[in-house]
Amino acid sequence: MRDHLFCTACRREFPIDSAFPRCDGCNEPLEVSISRAKPSIKTDAPRLLERFLDFMPLASLHAGISLGEGDTPLVKSSAAARETGIDRLFFKNEALNPTWSFKDRGTIACIEHALNLGYERIGTVSTGNMAASVAAYGARAGLQTYILVGSNLPEEKIAPIAIYSPRLILVDGDYGDLYFRSLEIGKQRGVYFMNSDVPFRVEGSKTIAFEICEQMGFEVPDNLVVPVSSGGNFRGIIKGFEEFLEAGLIDGLPRFIAAQADGCSPIADAFENNREAVERIVKPNTIAKAIANPYPPSGNQVLRKLRQHGGIAMTVSDAEIESAQELLARDGIFGQPAAAAPLAAVRKLVSQGTISGTQSVACVVSGAGVKSMSHLAAKEYQGTRIAIEKLQDVFR
Amino acid sequence: MRDHLFCTACRREFPIDSAFPRCDGCNEPLEVSISRAKPSIKTDAPRLLERFLDFMPLASLHAGISLGEGDTPLVKSSAAARETGIDRLFFKNEALNPTWSFKDRGTIACIEHALNLGYERIGTVSTGNMAASVAAYGARAGLQTYILVGSNLPEEKIAPIAIYSPRLILVDGDYGDLYFRSLEIGKQRGVYFMNSDVPFRVEGSKTIAFEICEQMGFEVPDNLVVPVSSGGNFRGIIKGFEEFLEAGLIDGLPRFIAAQADGCSPIADAFENNREAVERIVKPNTIAKAIANPYPPSGNQVLRKLRQHGGIAMTVSDAEIESAQELLARDGIFGQPAAAAPLAAVRKLVSQGTISGTQSVACVVSGAGVKSMSHLAAKEYQGTRIAIEKLQDVFR
Repeated sequence: MRDHLFCTACRREFPIDSAFPRCDGCNEPLEVSISRAKPSIKTDAPRLLERFLDFMPLASLHAGISLGEGDTPLVKSSAAARETGIDRLFFKNEALNPTWSFKDRGTIACIEHALNLGYERIGTVSTGNMAASVAAYGARAGLQTYILVGSNLPEEKIAPIAIYSPRLILVDGDYGDLYFRSLEIGKQRGVYFMNSDVPFRVEGSKTIAFEICEQMGFEVPDNLVVPVSSGGNFRGIIKGFEEFLEAGLIDGLPRFIAAQADGCSPIADAFENNREAVERIVKPNTIAKAIANPYPPSGNQVLRKLRQHGGIAMTVSDAEIESAQELLARDGIFGQPAAAAPLAAVRKLVSQGTISGTQSVACVVSGAGVKSMSHLAAKEYQGTRIAIEKLQDVFR
Repeated sequence: MRDHLFCTACRREFPIDSAFPRCDGCNEPLEVSISRAKPSIKTDAPRLLERFLDFMPLASLHAGISLGEGDTPLVKSSAAARETGIDRLFFKNEALNPTWSFKDRGTIACIEHALNLGYERIGTVSTGNMAASVAAYGARAGLQTYILVGSNLPEEKIAPIAIYSPRLILVDGDYGDLYFRSLEIGKQRGVYFMNSDVPFRVEGSKTIAFEICEQMGFEVPDNLVVPVSSGGNFRGIIKGFEEFLEAGLIDGLPRFIAAQADGCSPIADAFENNREAVERIVKPNTIAKAIANPYPPSGNQVLRKLRQHGGIAMTVSDAEIESAQELLARDGIFGQPAAAAPLAAVRKLVSQGTISGTQSVACVVSGAGVKSMSHLAAKEYQGTRIAIEKLQDVFR
């Protein structure tokens, strides 16, 4: 069967290169279906997408696009392992990507696709990690790159996007509508909007699962904990494990655990209340801005997948996130607040007895702490003040 | 001959585990000398120091210390290559290290050494990249970690260090004296101060050269451009190329080019004036804070090495650095100002005819732009403001 897209809800099929990433019947996200005879990992390939090309809906790759995305460390915990009693606790550190978040994996898959289709203009709707990622890769690929942000974006969040010289569009109006409106405009005007959960971005996210499997010697972690916002990255990670299982590279799936923030948890709310569809959160309020999507476009599909696989969606408070961020740093990793939500969730699940110390756990650290420091600015840090002449007194 | 240290000026020998990293006669930095029969790269080793263990003064490595340092991408330029006419222009992107700068390479070498010697306390003097690096690895290794900073450090620079929970010491007095004073106190009180150019940190920096050689298929770049501050990293990179040449892995050395900022260029000043020793800069003034060391402790050794190998030391202005930072971003890489100094230097050398388009050039991008954004805050960015109802008008 040829590569194609299908609706994640009604299963209807669409051409692989459809200019719109959602089902025109259900308004649910489309997803890639590929089948290869005997897909394998090209272990000698230095580039991410080349390494996993057999699992990608791409025939070949363009030169001069890669920035060395992926191939991020899987760090075995010491401090958090001791505290939680989980000996095999791992952090997949996505903060070591070229723009310091997991978004680069999906962005490069979309860029390759856009170039294949001859697009000259690309765009995205984001104020954070995805904006920087698309701006960086768009610049590198020489594409006209539109970054749509809310017009009230604080000045400090503009610089790390603007440095790549994209076309920055400050939109007055309901920021929540921008996701859908941009996809419509993209279809009409020939702009590839690589938003948070478009099919090729989800394909890129699969590589997080692929690498975890490789790094654990093709043993699957018992639990896989991911911070979830739009749901696109979580969908990709689940799909990656499914495809490796199908290819016979692993012999089971992890328990998939979606971590959201108390102050914006549309998926966890629907999961706990046995609803089939997410409901829009009116006033998101959390320090974990990267997972504060009030109306996740892949929310319903995440719910379907969690139920299919016996997964969990849950919430953690800002205080728990801050505390987990500090614990993570004791393992040497400075993640952004969203990136610490999985560890906060693990602590909670251990105290509830849902995870035991004999199980293995992999947490996805989604992005770098240096990118979101505003909540830390208010903190008081303990420091010893001393005159240089008396410095030796500190070291008794 | 056994591994030992020697004075980079008078060549006198010292034991490899000396508790003081400078010559008590010359006050010049000591350096490691090792000799192995047939050193080779352990190409299957996943960890940095394991891969290059034959080239390291370490017999074995500790578990649970690595954070996945090194193995950073060598990115082939598109935008800057077009502009400069240098087809084979490469960026070694050190911003993808665990604390987002090259410092992690030297830090882990020092941590391994400190653990071998049984140290329980470590420290450093830094307000930026090195402070974060030592704090992160110190936390991970479970060592008591002292970070010495000037007492006037702006609040915003504290959070990315304090997150790792080190002992933060705010010192009132001449910050320039702290480098030497901390080494003295470290010797007296048993604290391993892993300052900018101590011997094992220099050993860690060698791996930048090793990786560039590997990534270029053991062809040596014609020119290697590095932002230079204390001189420790530059010394390590030069030493790495020298050792690969000695081992027969490469058949020549690059031309070594040290880039400094106009506002703080003690090494370039001495180089241009044919002086043998650097002179202290009274008021450093540049946006490239990471290379604003007014009295570089390895400055004289850098001068000796540049003269030995026919290298160059030069300066670039803040305006040239800012412009190069933007050009670098068009290649998809957001480096801190210091990290853009090499590209600024390349532009200058091309316009002077010192580098031609047929030569290959590798630039070391030393650290991440997201870590030093203050100079960008003042910038005005071009953005289009539009109401959401009219959004489609942007995409004619």
